[in-house]
Parts: sequence; structure tokens; C-alpha cells
Amino acid sequence: MKRMIVYISDSTGITAETVGHSLLTQFPAMEFESLTLRYIDNVAKAHEAAALINRAGKSSAQRPIVFSTLVNSEIRHIVTGSDCLFIDFMVPFISPLAEEFGESVRPSIGHTHGQGHQYDTRMTAVNFALDSDDGLRTQQYDKAEIILTGVSRSGKTPTCVYLALHYGVFAANYPLVEEDLDKLQLPDSLKKYRDKLFGLTISADRLYRIRSERRPNSDYASLRQCQYEVRQVEALFRQCHFGYLDVTTMSVEEIATTIMSQSQLE
Amino acid sequence: MKRMIVYISDSTGITAETVGHSLLTQFPAMEFESLTLRYIDNVAKAHEAAALINRAGKSSAQRPIVFSTLVNSEIRHIVTGSDCLFIDFMVPFISPLAEEFGESVRPSIGHTHGQGHQYDTRMTAVNFALDSDDGLRTQQYDKAEIILTGVSRSGKTPTCVYLALHYGVFAANYPLVEEDLDKLQLPDSLKKYRDKLFGLTISADRLYRIRSERRPNSDYASLRQCQYEVRQVEALFRQCHFGYLDVTTMSVEEIATTIMSQSQLE
Repeated sequence: MKRMIVYISDSTGITAETVGHSLLTQFPAMEFESLTLRYIDNVAKAHEAAALINRAGKSSAQRPIVFSTLVNSEIRHIVTGSDCLFIDFMVPFISPLAEEFGESVRPSIGHTHGQGHQYDTRMTAVNFALDSDDGLRTQQYDKAEIILTGVSRSGKTPTCVYLALHYGVFAANYPLVEEDLDKLQLPDSLKKYRDKLFGLTISADRLYRIRSERRPNSDYASLRQCQYEVRQVEALFRQCHFGYLDVTTMSVEEIATTIMSQSQLE
Repeated sequence: MKRMIVYISDSTGITAETVGHSLLTQFPAMEFESLTLRYIDNVAKAHEAAALINRAGKSSAQRPIVFSTLVNSEIRHIVTGSDCLFIDFMVPFISPLAEEFGESVRPSIGHTHGQGHQYDTRMTAVNFALDSDDGLRTQQYDKAEIILTGVSRSGKTPTCVYLALHYGVFAANYPLVEEDLDKLQLPDSLKKYRDKLFGLTISADRLYRIRSERRPNSDYASLRQCQYEVRQVEALFRQCHFGYLDVTTMSVEEIATTIMSQSQLE
């Protein structure tokens, strides 16, 4: 029987989901099903949420676990009145912080975060990532903060997009093709940007599986081709002395944050 | 004087950053500067982190606030030994959950989340979003779960990318151009996908500012043109009876989660 998890928030629910997921990974033996109740920002929605939690508990014969970032006390009170284990990610931390900041700083309870000041930067960075995806527009590499390179399907594009969306980093990506790999040389358009280059590599087995989904039984996807490209690209990375990362077992979040740490983009 | 915030994690640091940001928005009068210490997963790195926190405290004459998702007790012990306000987002919640799940389920402390099972879906969804950005490849709209539409620069692309990266949703986007707006008609390639359409709109003032950054003093960016396009696109959305959202004051996270809720993609 899967245990019911409810994420509840007066805003996007992203914070509750993020901490909740992290906590639940500590219990790998358990199975969960989850539901997010977003924008629960008035009393009527709170009553609906409480009723839904009660119904879910009755139908599964176990009370749901509710991960909350609600801050309004009236709304919280209604939801905590339902039959659940209520785990609160916000309120218990507000008092110690308020105390630390001193009398003069009062928490503005219920203040939800609006559009961050970095919003325009992140939007511009996403457009930059898309405009310079897959070796496009190398003439705008002067504006890039980082240029990811590697063989086709090694995860460059999602990583660029993640760096742009979350950190406002201007990230371009350039796929190395067979000609570059045969010659063990960087293409001319990359040579003058060596300081911005960062390589991604991946196991040949995993690359083979990824490419096979896209173009089954092609030369491009063959294990032999994948083995050749990975061997050559790693030799090229070492020869050119720029940082690189084996992403075989990494999530896009892990790849992006590791690059942030290693390339001092922060 | 800005208060120093340190996010610390044995993994990406994303959870600590996410909850930390949410908490700090409750104190809008304060100013912060922050630093993320990622992949602190052994004793040596823990000692380095503790020394860094102590130095940061001395140089700013106020102890840093440390937001932690560390779970290993030895590593935590070293970090809590530094001079800081230590706020722990993981450990206090593990016991109540373990108790709820019962004797037979023991938390596997230190188990960090690896590559999620949804990883391939999300990668494929990002590729889909990029392949069908800006009206490209409408022939693959059968595969789309949602098609965002609206005027140029209303936030369709970042939203599609966010939906793909975070939720594995196959999201395409199609910009409505002047001809569609003049005629108040959907282009032929969209007509048969009315059930998948979702509109984004934005205030003419904000659209004017966004477009002016990209193409200053053009007809495209003029306030008059923006006013015309916004008025027409909203009329078209209403006439075609599909859902739409005014994104003027919304972050990309808010747009994406609102669409998830409203279009029952979950």
C-alpha cells in the first residue's frame, strides 16, 4: 500500500515538494503517492484541502502525511485540523530567525515571494541558451559565461537550460563531431574560448542506450561508435586541459550544481 | 551590513537553497549575501566548511546563518561546532516520519537521491520543448501534452522549458503573429489542437519594456504595437474558449505550477 503524501502551499508548492522529496529519499523501502495543493491562500480553499486530506485518509486507511509551507495561521489551523501527520517546513524556523535578526526586524508573515530581481536575467539567459544550443551562433560566444562541449547526447542541452533557468548563467553548448574527434582537435570556433570550455562525458553503454532510443539500429547509435567517440572526446579534453565531468550517473541538477562549483560561476 | 547566509549540503544544495530562500522572503527588510557549500560529504570537507563559516563570521562581525540538509551525524557535528546559527532542514523531520512509518522501516541516513526514475522522461521532454519552440515542427503536436500560445515575448519559451525540466511535460509553444491577430483567428496548424492550447498574456507596458531591451526603438517594440497585440490576443483567447493566464507579475515557477494546476497535467 502506497502512503499518501500531500504537499500544501499558499504559493507554487515547489519548496514543500523539494524538501519533502529529499526527506522521503531517506526511506527507500517505502512507496508513496503524492498530490500537490498549490495556491491555498484563503479560508475556503483551506477547508477544501482539509476535506480532501480527510477523504484520502479514509480511502487508504492510513492518515496522509502533509508537508506544508503555509504561513498564514488561520489557513494552517484549518488544515492541521484534518486527520494527518502535519510536517511544517516554514513556521518552526521563523521564530529563531526573527530572534537572531533582533527586535527591529519583524517577519512579514504571509509575504510570498514574487518575481525575483533576477527574473529578467534568467529569462534572457534562457533565450541565450536556446539561441546558442547545439553549436548555433558561435559569434555570440563573447557573451557566454560557459560553453559546454562533448559528444552528441551527452546532456549538454538540458544542463545549459538548467544553468540559465536557475542561476541566470549564460551557457552555450557545442557538439563535437566525428571530424573533431578523428583529428583530436578543437574546431576553430572554440579555440579562442578555451577558458570558457567545460566538457561533459558519459559511459559508452549509457550513450548507446540514449542514442538507440532516438535512432535505433543506426551507425550513430551503435555501441562501437559510442565507444570510439567517448574514448576520443576524453582524450581531447585531457589534451586541452579544461575541466570535464562524467555525467553517467548524474541528474541534470547534479551536473549543473557541480559545474557551478567547479567553474566558479557564482 | 548584509547578513551572511551559508547553504550546506552533502548533495546539490538545491533543497537547502529552496527552503532557505522561502524563509528569508519572510524578512523583506533584511539584506543577505549567500554562499552554497555543495557535496560536503566527508570529514575533511566538513572541517574546511567549518573554518570558512568561522572566517565569514569574523570578517562580518555577525555569525552566519547556516541552512543545512546534511544528514551524516559526524559531518553535521563538525559543522555545528562552528560559530553560526545552524538551521537544520532534514534531521528534525526524520524521527517523526520514522515513527509514523513504524518499526520495520528504518531511515537510511545519508542516502542521497541519485538519478530519478523520471530522468529520461525529463531529458526527452526538454528536447521536445526545444524542437517545438517558437512554432517549429507543428507536425509533432500529436505528442504534445500542452501547447502554449501568445504574442512574441510573453514568456512561452521559459515556461515550456520549465515544464519539461521539472515535470517531464511535453510542452510546445506557438507565437501568434500579426496576421492571426488581425483576423482574430487561430492559424490552421493550431485549430485541431484546441484542447491542448493554453494562452499567456502580459500587460502591454511590461511587454513594451521586454521587447525594447531586445530591439530598442523598433515598430515591434513600440508601446502602440504592444497594446494592439495584447488587446487582440486576449480577444482571441476569449473567443476560442481556452484557458489563459496573465503572467505580468509572475515568475516562471509560478506560471508553470499554475498551468500544471489549471490544465490537470498531473
